[in-house]
Amino acid sequence: MVAVVDVRDIVVPIQSRIRNAYIDFSRMNVSVVAVVTDVVREGRPVIGFGFNSNGRYAPQGLLRERFIPRLVDAARAHPTSLLDDSQTNLDPTAIWRLLMSNEKPGGHGERSVAVGVLDMALWDATAKIAEVPLWRLLADRMQGGQFDERVFVYAAGGYYHPGKGNAALQDEMRSYLDRGYSVVKMKIGGAPLAEDLRRIEAVVDGVLDGDASRLAVDANARFDRRTAFRYADALAPLGLRWFEEPGDPLDYALQSALTESYAGPMATGENLFSHQDARNLIRYGGMRPDRDILQFDCALSYGLVEYLRTLDMLHRHGWSARRCIPHGGHQMSLNIAAGLRLGGNESYPDVFEPFNGFADDIAVEDSYVTLPEEPGIGMEAKSELYRTVLKPLVES
Amino acid sequence: MVAVVDVRDIVVPIQSRIRNAYIDFSRMNVSVVAVVTDVVREGRPVIGFGFNSNGRYAPQGLLRERFIPRLVDAARAHPTSLLDDSQTNLDPTAIWRLLMSNEKPGGHGERSVAVGVLDMALWDATAKIAEVPLWRLLADRMQGGQFDERVFVYAAGGYYHPGKGNAALQDEMRSYLDRGYSVVKMKIGGAPLAEDLRRIEAVVDGVLDGDASRLAVDANARFDRRTAFRYADALAPLGLRWFEEPGDPLDYALQSALTESYAGPMATGENLFSHQDARNLIRYGGMRPDRDILQFDCALSYGLVEYLRTLDMLHRHGWSARRCIPHGGHQMSLNIAAGLRLGGNESYPDVFEPFNGFADDIAVEDSYVTLPEEPGIGMEAKSELYRTVLKPLVES
Repeated sequence: MVAVVDVRDIVVPIQSRIRNAYIDFSRMNVSVVAVVTDVVREGRPVIGFGFNSNGRYAPQGLLRERFIPRLVDAARAHPTSLLDDSQTNLDPTAIWRLLMSNEKPGGHGERSVAVGVLDMALWDATAKIAEVPLWRLLADRMQGGQFDERVFVYAAGGYYHPGKGNAALQDEMRSYLDRGYSVVKMKIGGAPLAEDLRRIEAVVDGVLDGDASRLAVDANARFDRRTAFRYADALAPLGLRWFEEPGDPLDYALQSALTESYAGPMATGENLFSHQDARNLIRYGGMRPDRDILQFDCALSYGLVEYLRTLDMLHRHGWSARRCIPHGGHQMSLNIAAGLRLGGNESYPDVFEPFNGFADDIAVEDSYVTLPEEPGIGMEAKSELYRTVLKPLVES
Repeated sequence: MVAVVDVRDIVVPIQSRIRNAYIDFSRMNVSVVAVVTDVVREGRPVIGFGFNSNGRYAPQGLLRERFIPRLVDAARAHPTSLLDDSQTNLDPTAIWRLLMSNEKPGGHGERSVAVGVLDMALWDATAKIAEVPLWRLLADRMQGGQFDERVFVYAAGGYYHPGKGNAALQDEMRSYLDRGYSVVKMKIGGAPLAEDLRRIEAVVDGVLDGDASRLAVDANARFDRRTAFRYADALAPLGLRWFEEPGDPLDYALQSALTESYAGPMATGENLFSHQDARNLIRYGGMRPDRDILQFDCALSYGLVEYLRTLDMLHRHGWSARRCIPHGGHQMSLNIAAGLRLGGNESYPDVFEPFNGFADDIAVEDSYVTLPEEPGIGMEAKSELYRTVLKPLVES
């Protein structure tokens, strides 16, 4: 028998002066949860950790009002309802159904983040109890043991910042190359088109030796229809890695129309928070399975349990999981990318500390990273995160 | 100059033993807010009240973490930013933009409820400051003074309930007719099809003199594709008022396919919480502007400011506002229905007290109600609501 004996949560600010085309991050924060079990491994209780991705706020109210109480109540009243058939480990899918009991369908936002945070902690605990890294657990359970030994990562940055000129943008991008990234991403849409084109040119010609296929651009859903087409027309000849989220994430008709005039790869999905929303993008968004990128982020969208439904939906629509490069830059998606053989993972080398990036001892080489061998997600192998957030949370 | 001087909120339980096909309501609750102004009318400060509809939980955490602080901070730092050009009244649209600042697009759930609660209170205050009922304010501002003197309402009930047999269901429906309703709605999908058909027959033949056009049925998004078609085929010959929300609210392809095999009116929309989601239903859901019913509920979906965007979208897609009969059974939608000339409003005669129903002195006749003459939404004219919830909130 395994038991959940405590669930803790805190809110950690990740405020920053950066800005994308849609919001500034001056009040951004993150919920962190610890799911404490009675299982002992290497002399210590197994604790699963989870946190939400950047861009959506800490869902502390929702966690405390509904989702943590449902987990704690079930752990107390029906402890076996949390377990798999062997009763020697947690069952994240069964727990997901408990968390979502008495929740109406539709309206996928905010609560999808709260459930995503808990889901991350539950998978972390499950892999730790099984004494394997999460990527291996997933590979063993779902891929016949097959996994990717290294995962493509790209450096997301290029935010707008008061007083930041093109020289500073170039310095930033150059520093990503110095740290092993060969593909980088920058924000667009926060400046007029002509200025954004100069910013792009500064990076492509000044940093990437003229190779635009190493640069993705992200409009963060800022554009109306007319502006989206103006940008698409101007960007089309450049040969960029991808053109990300030009319009409202739910405007599938606009997305579909854009794919007809923009032949290069497009990317979207970070603001779709359920498999039903993802399915609508696939049904109506005109996305092309041979080139486009899907960026659904499990930590914002009901966790890995729901992400598995999304992958199943994609498979049935003829899409390869290789087209998925999740938003968020966290280790949860790194594990998923390796264990379920996605196309890669985002990385934020310089922002959203200490939740950004990967284990301390893992270097980026040619825009690929190898995997942590620690049981679980590997958050303990990221010392700054462990020291400043996770350890104080469990020792408080 | 007008100023917002205080914003208060409480959570009120509306738990009940009822059950629809998807959830039970044993822990359902409602957030109530009071927006206190420095305007004095009839010797007392003007206070706007708002609350969320049933079916989604009280968004207290979101209100306190983000939306009330944004309103209070703006009221303190930039008081004129809340006001219309005359500076003699609030501007709910301007305040909406303040509330939604630094919120990313997409993910329309939960926060849409929090904003909806505040929006209701802001319109209530705005109409009170203008010393007119909200329906008249809307008619004067947006309809050239034209409004409906009475509004169609139907009685929503017929929930599943432990031990409730068909005789009790008939008694319930008969009591709605006794109270002036001629159109009623009952739940389906919480029992096998054969039993649901017997329940429907008991109401149509036993209560409605065989006239199925006075009965709507609501599956609360319970059905998978196969079950939805089984029900559609079985219900189609009956001639019901409408068949509501058979499948997942975001499965527009299923909704569209059903309209091809179910010729009678269908209804949906209560679980779509933004004009973008509503637009997707119109674009992809196969809904027919000559017969189908749209049930978007402003109190769950960013309020009237967003609902106006939805109505504008409908107009541009060739839909009349008369096709809208909002979910929720609250006085906010009653005012909107009269002032913007919708098709009617839901009513819950027996559940969700004291937030259900209309002003004390307004009787239902032939399934129509007349309008309150009190300034604002008219919540003070509902004495149980005022006495047990609103008055204690402002006097606390």
